[in-house]
Amino acid sequence: MLFDISAPDPAIAPALQQRIDRKTKPLGALGRLEALAQQIGLIQQRLEPQLLQPQMLVFAGDHGAACAGVSAYPQDVTWQMVENFLAGGAAINVFARQMEMNLTVVDAGVAHDFGARAGLVDAKIARGTANFIERPAMSPEQRDEAIARGRQLAHNLFENGCNVVGFGEMGIGNTAAASLLTHCLVGEAGGAGLETVTGRGTGLDDAGLARKRSLLATALARGGRPTDPLAVLAEYGGFEIAMMAGAMLGAAERRMVLLIDGFIVTSALLVAHALAPRLLPYCIFAHRSQEPGHAIQHRHLGVEPLMQLDLRLGEGTGAALAWPLVQAAVNFLNEMASFESAGVTER
Amino acid sequence: MLFDISAPDPAIAPALQQRIDRKTKPLGALGRLEALAQQIGLIQQRLEPQLLQPQMLVFAGDHGAACAGVSAYPQDVTWQMVENFLAGGAAINVFARQMEMNLTVVDAGVAHDFGARAGLVDAKIARGTANFIERPAMSPEQRDEAIARGRQLAHNLFENGCNVVGFGEMGIGNTAAASLLTHCLVGEAGGAGLETVTGRGTGLDDAGLARKRSLLATALARGGRPTDPLAVLAEYGGFEIAMMAGAMLGAAERRMVLLIDGFIVTSALLVAHALAPRLLPYCIFAHRSQEPGHAIQHRHLGVEPLMQLDLRLGEGTGAALAWPLVQAAVNFLNEMASFESAGVTER
Repeated sequence: MLFDISAPDPAIAPALQQRIDRKTKPLGALGRLEALAQQIGLIQQRLEPQLLQPQMLVFAGDHGAACAGVSAYPQDVTWQMVENFLAGGAAINVFARQMEMNLTVVDAGVAHDFGARAGLVDAKIARGTANFIERPAMSPEQRDEAIARGRQLAHNLFENGCNVVGFGEMGIGNTAAASLLTHCLVGEAGGAGLETVTGRGTGLDDAGLARKRSLLATALARGGRPTDPLAVLAEYGGFEIAMMAGAMLGAAERRMVLLIDGFIVTSALLVAHALAPRLLPYCIFAHRSQEPGHAIQHRHLGVEPLMQLDLRLGEGTGAALAWPLVQAAVNFLNEMASFESAGVTER
Repeated sequence: MLFDISAPDPAIAPALQQRIDRKTKPLGALGRLEALAQQIGLIQQRLEPQLLQPQMLVFAGDHGAACAGVSAYPQDVTWQMVENFLAGGAAINVFARQMEMNLTVVDAGVAHDFGARAGLVDAKIARGTANFIERPAMSPEQRDEAIARGRQLAHNLFENGCNVVGFGEMGIGNTAAASLLTHCLVGEAGGAGLETVTGRGTGLDDAGLARKRSLLATALARGGRPTDPLAVLAEYGGFEIAMMAGAMLGAAERRMVLLIDGFIVTSALLVAHALAPRLLPYCIFAHRSQEPGHAIQHRHLGVEPLMQLDLRLGEGTGAALAWPLVQAAVNFLNEMASFESAGVTER
């Protein structure tokens, strides 16, 4: 699979930095917002970047392993929560409304028929993955189709004038898949031992966590520890994770700003990053969740998220909550006065 | 000085928690936003709290010690930045506009005549404090008048329908005053040795920092280390700091939500807290700045701020940037569906 992603041309960086430094504030005083302004200016190759039609995409899919007991919740909660998204009642709906982000739910592979619905994109690959404890989660054809559909979705958004996309997900059992992906792609050497990267997900108790770890060890005994990103995805992934990885790659191809949410979204990014490392400069890391593997993913990628709010909800909630900071970075760059224009004395 | 502040009645807490826990999310999955929702519900004594007419107050004042060389910038920058605020060109203007917060600048004691200006409250005590290296910064009468005017300002806001107030400041030299206040009120035992709580402010180099520390040691040799908050304020404070402390106390008297910004704002809170510890439950701590004394203030108060963005600008910028998180806490509480209403299966 080839993705046409090139790193942003750094030639504009000094001019961006000068623009930041002429603003009426001490040098560096806006801290991480200054780095964000630089990054977005580089992505867009503009001294006056513009954030257009920000879009939250929530990818939903079911996992065969959910029925084996890797989650605190029954599998039906996936489709029930999709219905909740479509009715506007979930946390991500509340936050997307507040932040004035458009919200679209993508059915990548939920084990339920929704019919044609406003706000829902039907990109279903199948009614849930196979149970990775017993067999590969998906076929190579399913995986490639999921990636291709995600990529096309991102391209379509871009063609409709959007240049910022936030990623969220819903899928009972998908922290288990994300743990396996992280274990395989980061490895023991990166601190991603199976125990370390397997957390409580939506809230397993101690017995539930022990059961989840034991089930994932069984899965690994069956499928091994592939390190090729496409092989890992087919073995242990989810349709929502594969489609997200494709959408991330497609968005980076179009030089969009990518808002990266929690542990599962970042597991999709690990796949995308292994396929095309040059997508990394397009990513903004919104938050670090309570799920212990998330910090390990961040360390592997060499990134530091903007916020730490002890979230562990998914849905893209962290990405939506960080969005005002991204806007603030662009706004100060475009709207603040300079020392000259404001007549303020410099040091 | 007596302030009529009582801690929120905790009787409503279980009902608030139940409301939070019935939302369609795993228990505790919204992390710190859940604690915020609890806190605001308690402050307002309502299961459906409302944030009304959010107001940023930026208190400006000059410091006699600025002319002695405690800052990287000349004193004139205080009034020049006030002009920048009034013209809409500073960082806090950009962020307040983005966040749809009303912004008012309060001249607590700038060494400049602005005349009557839209967006500026003239509450000037004097044209800057005295140089605390040589004599007390202000008289007890000036201090009491500054506190009284701040308190009245907060009461007036409340009477006009506002129930959330963010605090910001501008004053060349005021990190030096804040360092002395923190040193006196937190003390060596609280980790607030003078060296530790004296930082680079707007960006002193090593030589400038050494000079600032030496000047503050000279001030302490003159004025001693009073521990009474009113005595400390008169000895080393600023008019903007005293007026902020009064406004914080007045806002807590009216059960408003207080958004606390950076190192200097928190030094005013140390004074207010020492006068009336029960204001603390009304405070939301927006961020932790790069100024090293800020973390020591937070530890002394036993609080953890929402964000860490390496800001060191003041003006209330951190408070404005954290405001969407506060809104998000109230919005999820009021707008999210419950398991029952959404038909989602529980664990």
